Amino acid sequence: MAKFLTNKEESFSQWYNDLVIKADLAENSAVRGCMVIKPYGYAIWERIQAELDRKFKATGHVNAYFPLFIPKSFFSREAAHVEGFAKECAVVTHYRLKHSADGKGIIVDPDAKLEEELIVRPTSETIIWNTYKDWIHSYRDLPLLINQWANVVRWEMRTRLFLRTAEFLWQEGHTAHATREEAIEETTKIIDLYADFVTNFMGIPVIKGYKSPSERFAGAEDTFAIEALMQDGKALQAGTSHFLGQNFAKAFDVKFTNEKGKLDYVWATSWGVSTRLMGALVLAHADNNGLVIPPRLAPIQVVIIPIYKGSDQLDKISEIAINLKIRLEEAGLTVKYDNRDTQKPGFKFADYELKGVPVRLAIGPRDADQGTVEVARRDTLTKETISRDNVVSHVVSLMDEIHNNILKKATAFREENTHYVDNWDEFLDVIENKGGFVMAHWDGTPETEEQIKNLTKATIRVIPFDSPTEKGKCIYSGNPSDRRVLFARAY
Amino acid sequence: MAKFLTNKEESFSQWYNDLVIKADLAENSAVRGCMVIKPYGYAIWERIQAELDRKFKATGHVNAYFPLFIPKSFFSREAAHVEGFAKECAVVTHYRLKHSADGKGIIVDPDAKLEEELIVRPTSETIIWNTYKDWIHSYRDLPLLINQWANVVRWEMRTRLFLRTAEFLWQEGHTAHATREEAIEETTKIIDLYADFVTNFMGIPVIKGYKSPSERFAGAEDTFAIEALMQDGKALQAGTSHFLGQNFAKAFDVKFTNEKGKLDYVWATSWGVSTRLMGALVLAHADNNGLVIPPRLAPIQVVIIPIYKGSDQLDKISEIAINLKIRLEEAGLTVKYDNRDTQKPGFKFADYELKGVPVRLAIGPRDADQGTVEVARRDTLTKETISRDNVVSHVVSLMDEIHNNILKKATAFREENTHYVDNWDEFLDVIENKGGFVMAHWDGTPETEEQIKNLTKATIRVIPFDSPTEKGKCIYSGNPSDRRVLFARAY
Repeated sequence: MAKFLTNKEESFSQWYNDLVIKADLAENSAVRGCMVIKPYGYAIWERIQAELDRKFKATGHVNAYFPLFIPKSFFSREAAHVEGFAKECAVVTHYRLKHSADGKGIIVDPDAKLEEELIVRPTSETIIWNTYKDWIHSYRDLPLLINQWANVVRWEMRTRLFLRTAEFLWQEGHTAHATREEAIEETTKIIDLYADFVTNFMGIPVIKGYKSPSERFAGAEDTFAIEALMQDGKALQAGTSHFLGQNFAKAFDVKFTNEKGKLDYVWATSWGVSTRLMGALVLAHADNNGLVIPPRLAPIQVVIIPIYKGSDQLDKISEIAINLKIRLEEAGLTVKYDNRDTQKPGFKFADYELKGVPVRLAIGPRDADQGTVEVARRDTLTKETISRDNVVSHVVSLMDEIHNNILKKATAFREENTHYVDNWDEFLDVIENKGGFVMAHWDGTPETEEQIKNLTKATIRVIPFDSPTEKGKCIYSGNPSDRRVLFARAY
Repeated sequence: MAKFLTNKEESFSQWYNDLVIKADLAENSAVRGCMVIKPYGYAIWERIQAELDRKFKATGHVNAYFPLFIPKSFFSREAAHVEGFAKECAVVTHYRLKHSADGKGIIVDPDAKLEEELIVRPTSETIIWNTYKDWIHSYRDLPLLINQWANVVRWEMRTRLFLRTAEFLWQEGHTAHATREEAIEETTKIIDLYADFVTNFMGIPVIKGYKSPSERFAGAEDTFAIEALMQDGKALQAGTSHFLGQNFAKAFDVKFTNEKGKLDYVWATSWGVSTRLMGALVLAHADNNGLVIPPRLAPIQVVIIPIYKGSDQLDKISEIAINLKIRLEEAGLTVKYDNRDTQKPGFKFADYELKGVPVRLAIGPRDADQGTVEVARRDTLTKETISRDNVVSHVVSLMDEIHNNILKKATAFREENTHYVDNWDEFLDVIENKGGFVMAHWDGTPETEEQIKNLTKATIRVIPFDSPTEKGKCIYSGNPSDRRVLFARAY
């Protein structure tokens, strides 16, 4: 199957594109920059959705749905926000089509021009805070902890499946609070929730931290992010949580009466993760044989493949396989028995490797006679023969073992590729020749940050929450610095 | 609480609008015709989604996601489809905004005009069949059983919350088959699935049948629908399933090699239900006190309310209530314990009545002492006192009992309001003065159908699958007819 994929050592970028398409995750559509998420890719996204949704609800959040369209004028209300978002976006100007005079097609009806253009939401702070104005009057209405699962559109010029697409799917949380402290607590709670999810469900270790002011969300007072390291040494921002202060409350005049009877503006947060996480899954774990999906995330955790000649053998093996499937499902696993007679076992082996199914069980005539099953792990590509009596408990324990191994491998890779750098030449050398995460001192000015970015394409990914106080000198300006920050080239 | 709602006898339409807003289901947004689905309304929609999604997957369907935008030219490919859908829709013409010269706001950048306009999907047959062209080559690729959960936009001029909105949420299934027979079987399977869902999950009885040719989906060879009767005597189409023949395969050139090695066009179906079902829920079951949600659909099935004076009483009651909540949850029920001290019991009673929670349990100091619980049913508004030892099994059995009672009531209402009519005067009288379903003979011509519609606003809802062969005369033309069809005024 490896022949279908470009080797990642040869061209990492081509390997990624090949893999996303060959593993049936997604493909480009007829509409520039918009992708089709194929059933297998969507099944993984559904796993992401289900687990995040469960976590959101367990922390008191509820879902709602706000309009796809936002009146153009709403963007102008928050000064920073308009700079960040009201640029490259899809603009609806008309609401009707009609037949062309020559009868050869349909044209936009010039009489059906909207009075005010509508923007397809690139993010929903403005329309949501315009709505919250009617929902919030008193401290009793707070906190408001709302999440939305939605599609959003940002007219990106250079697109890549999952990583940067014009339309993408995401969730966006928008919460409203009575105090600054409570809003900051929410912002923190969510970045912790994201970190827990990406680490313990997707097997990808992350660094939590603050974005530098220039990398903040447009309209936020503070942005927290989680950053993960991909196998090509580039960073990927896997989730963000924003403390919005009272900016949107002021822009949309959302005031409440506090417990002391005084009017005050409401405090806000917003936070989101998107189908970009699908890209992270590929870039963090996949290999030259295809996807490697951590078991908790896998839509199919175990596949059973019969190896047989003739229908007598198949019948005998199927009986065993179906019984085994039932026992594995009773143990809480998601199992597929692939008894298609249109494909040979070798093809199936390679296909489930490509699709990253964590455990493959094969049963041949000898296994049927001897009461054994061949158990293959996707993460290590190792095989062993296990007695049928023990296979369920073995596979159940493999789920955690494989998750831990995938996470351990990704963590080791990150450790190996995290460089502590103390001068500019070394910084240039590492960024240019090694890649990875670079922990270095920065003088805290946007000018230096900008210069470093222009010269190296490396950006400050985050100022890690746990970066210890340490006196040092900025690698670029030589000015004093209190702590190291995380630099990297990024997706 | 009734004071918040207009009585439905006074103004059914005002009652509906009041209820949707007061029960926190949805509200109008700042964008014309687009609604905000509020958390409680969305929680009901999530129950609808979860159950339908389970049913789709149990019948072999998988989910995927296709682009929000459709190139304008795609609509022109299928002649009937363009007439039906490429009319009132949201048209994206530009992809960038910029600051206005006067610095007072943002304007559409005239330099960022799209070469071909994009339509916000009103339905996705065209973009999906354009994609299927690359997915389907051989009979081995069939059937393709794909569903999509998505938002769609149809620029309706007169909108009403849930019933007719510019943007709405839905699921759209799009399947591809090797034979006509198999596609028709799928079309039938889905209308049966919808009927089962609406009847046995939402407690609304439906009539299954064929749409007349003029009421078919634009591009379909046959449309099956389920029709439900609302409390004001109007019909509501609750779901449709379309047999598309080879129309879209021909329009998008989707051919496959069949088992005999011959090239043929693929056979198609499409089917959908939408947030309109939320409107049906209100219109079918609600009363002057608010919503009445059938238990299987209810996001909160049981609410427990403490009745107390002072914190000592509350502590004692809370211990009982929390224990009871746990036992009810262990029995599979969704339970809320509302111990807010900001609202009085009377307010809470009315509020959960308004929200349609099927069962309310109240525990006062005397109940605490005597080991009893007051059990109130939303459907009948009756109360009884039950011993705490028996309350769990009692409430569990109430779930089915309430569902059955709601369905029975709606079915009885439909029976009472289904009229068999044999001449034009009677037809006029019933449609004008009684409303409801009218079973009458029709000569099968679109001209007669059109005339009846123009004269009475009544349309043929369906030709019921189970309408028996019966010789008769068309109520309008007097021409011969083989069976009765179902007429009604409709939402």
